[in-house]
Amino acid sequence: MATKKKQAKKADAAVKVALLGFGTVGSSVARVLAAQKFAGIELTHIFNRNVGRKRASDAAKAVSGSVKWTENVDEILRSDVDVVVELTGGLTPTESWIRKALSSGKSVVTANKQLIAYRGTGLARLAAQHGVYLVHGAAVAGGVPVIPGMLQGLGGDRVTRLSGILNGTCNYILSRMESGADYATVLADAQQLGYAEADPSADVDGYDARAKLCILSRIAMRAELDPDAVPTQTIATVEAVDFAYAKELNCTIRQISRAQLDGAVVHARVAPMLVPLASPLAWSHGTQNMVVTSGEFGGDVVFSGHGAGGEPTAVAVVSDLLAVAQGCRSVELPVRKRAVTSDFMAPHYLRFVVDDKPGIVSAISGALAKVGANIDSLLQRRGYPKHKLPFVITTEPSLTSTIEKAMVSIGKMDCMLEKPLCLQILVPEDKAE
Amino acid sequence: MATKKKQAKKADAAVKVALLGFGTVGSSVARVLAAQKFAGIELTHIFNRNVGRKRASDAAKAVSGSVKWTENVDEILRSDVDVVVELTGGLTPTESWIRKALSSGKSVVTANKQLIAYRGTGLARLAAQHGVYLVHGAAVAGGVPVIPGMLQGLGGDRVTRLSGILNGTCNYILSRMESGADYATVLADAQQLGYAEADPSADVDGYDARAKLCILSRIAMRAELDPDAVPTQTIATVEAVDFAYAKELNCTIRQISRAQLDGAVVHARVAPMLVPLASPLAWSHGTQNMVVTSGEFGGDVVFSGHGAGGEPTAVAVVSDLLAVAQGCRSVELPVRKRAVTSDFMAPHYLRFVVDDKPGIVSAISGALAKVGANIDSLLQRRGYPKHKLPFVITTEPSLTSTIEKAMVSIGKMDCMLEKPLCLQILVPEDKAE
Repeated sequence: MATKKKQAKKADAAVKVALLGFGTVGSSVARVLAAQKFAGIELTHIFNRNVGRKRASDAAKAVSGSVKWTENVDEILRSDVDVVVELTGGLTPTESWIRKALSSGKSVVTANKQLIAYRGTGLARLAAQHGVYLVHGAAVAGGVPVIPGMLQGLGGDRVTRLSGILNGTCNYILSRMESGADYATVLADAQQLGYAEADPSADVDGYDARAKLCILSRIAMRAELDPDAVPTQTIATVEAVDFAYAKELNCTIRQISRAQLDGAVVHARVAPMLVPLASPLAWSHGTQNMVVTSGEFGGDVVFSGHGAGGEPTAVAVVSDLLAVAQGCRSVELPVRKRAVTSDFMAPHYLRFVVDDKPGIVSAISGALAKVGANIDSLLQRRGYPKHKLPFVITTEPSLTSTIEKAMVSIGKMDCMLEKPLCLQILVPEDKAE
Repeated sequence: MATKKKQAKKADAAVKVALLGFGTVGSSVARVLAAQKFAGIELTHIFNRNVGRKRASDAAKAVSGSVKWTENVDEILRSDVDVVVELTGGLTPTESWIRKALSSGKSVVTANKQLIAYRGTGLARLAAQHGVYLVHGAAVAGGVPVIPGMLQGLGGDRVTRLSGILNGTCNYILSRMESGADYATVLADAQQLGYAEADPSADVDGYDARAKLCILSRIAMRAELDPDAVPTQTIATVEAVDFAYAKELNCTIRQISRAQLDGAVVHARVAPMLVPLASPLAWSHGTQNMVVTSGEFGGDVVFSGHGAGGEPTAVAVVSDLLAVAQGCRSVELPVRKRAVTSDFMAPHYLRFVVDDKPGIVSAISGALAKVGANIDSLLQRRGYPKHKLPFVITTEPSLTSTIEKAMVSIGKMDCMLEKPLCLQILVPEDKAE
């Protein structure tokens, strides 16, 4: 694509920027812009609902008196701003605002992962038609430059696999559980600290990470996935006992988003998984994000850092703004739609909580044998009551669908006090089938 | 800078590319280009000394029959190629070739770290004058997209500190020594495996890493350093016993390249240092490279992966070629010349080998007290002979120059059988003074 972009023509005139949204990230963007005073970038408008309150807030002190505050987004869309920075999130009405902005010749910088995951391809086409930019480096992993790094630095490779810790809330919860806390307590702490929403579902059930995984798949593997086709599994059913058993297996547990290109399909999944302590993915603690890509020529590359928070995300937004202001396009490579399969060939961790009596292991191993899955180990820690006994079976590499089939029948056994938990075990040699 | 670049104007015509150098990296670039068949890039010329031999090699099989092979670099510089990929290395005569290429309107993609570290600013100016590109993503950390990631993704931050493992040869040697091998054996192995040159000085004495540190300082901290002003310390004096003592301190030893912006000066140093096992820098093994940046707004960001080798480096070269072919400029920010100081405020690890007799510790601690350095710990492992006893003193944070002053007088003591070893201990809270 060699369309001439509008900003590139403007030479030395400052690019006029409007912020949509003056929350944590928006006010951080204003602060970073005020602190850095980059030549060629001028913040001219801020849109927010209830704008009077925002304007009176401490955060507004970093904003120049010349900036126009408004509750009317159309005022911005009709104005002469060159770049709209969208930080309001969601699909509706945001998508229509962005379409209007692009159609009226304004470039858009956005941190909106859902919008880019679901509508990114169409919006990029619209931007190209109007000769403007649509940039979204802040949509994945906040301050970690994984999107620009991939776009400009991995284009020459053929990336076939990526695994990431893409949701800081889940990583905070699971890394605190690793140190002994239980899920409910840590979730409540995370909510109090502002890491988790009152309704934590988007984070803990994997929808947030799934959108990010789809964005990364498009950039790194040039594979467009339907986000709704990527299976997710909640972290809410992981318990303290699972960390104890994981440790015996030299592993910890993290919410992993993984995708693997395999001919015309992509294996993809967002779920809590066992991660070997030797894997870089086990290094990330707290709200850190991490992405590991595996390329045919360049091998494994790791990116990590602060994936969320106002200022790290603002770094990504302002870096994108600099690129737009200076007329720096990104490398574009052909992207193909790819069907998603949820299946992976992997060893699995199966945790059961039973009212213990003779014959249970025999029944479970029978059900696994019936689907052709081999048991690799059986772990039973001391100190749990027999009437509510948690124990673990790990399998040799098997298809997740095969194991899940056995788990349905095992889950119906009378002795089962809880729905059994089934987690993939990540191994570096993992191959999708 | 809003100069229109030549390639951007060419729309759909393929960009003609010449390779200077068909060694490990050059042949990998040819192979990656042949495997990926990117639209808009056409390899047309290959230059190498003794080109007949190269042309007859197995590596040449990936090269299309239409490519012109030559031993005459002027033939390429006079031709209509659009991009020269320089993989020959060194300053002379390479610099003159690159100047000619840029002056005749050809863009240059290079992996030449010495050239960019010493002449990068002048060459970038020349490229800008002629409206062409000079891109060097492969000059640091090979396949790890640290340069494009920083350029496009950290421009919005104010990076004040960076630490890296920038030389794969040293990392290979030190991580094998960590597992018990001794320096001379591992160096010989590294030479046999092709990781180290017959004269290993550029690697083990830190000159290679120093050039890379200067390139990263320019991009991440916008600080131009004179490479010759950055002190280096060889890894050749690190011994097996140092890894044993480091382990007692919960550390390992790595060749670390570090720079820290401090007002108008930059603290910089390339040396073997003690790295806490909890630091990401301790994770990298074998020939891996790693860079950790610390930004005022975005916090710490880690990049890691394969820093050397034909194919990882080729990924960086081909990614740069894609950017040039598609007319994608990089973000440019003002760079300032900065004076270098070698001083850091850090705890230090001091290892002595003595012919043991009463009064040695008292004499050493007296010399340290005289310069105002406080001892933090004294370590003396069992099992060494008294007439050749290695023991260690660690200091509380002190200026390296202060410690080195004491080390000069300590080194003159009669009991010293070897020159004492002085290493900085890296701590996350490290502040330059």
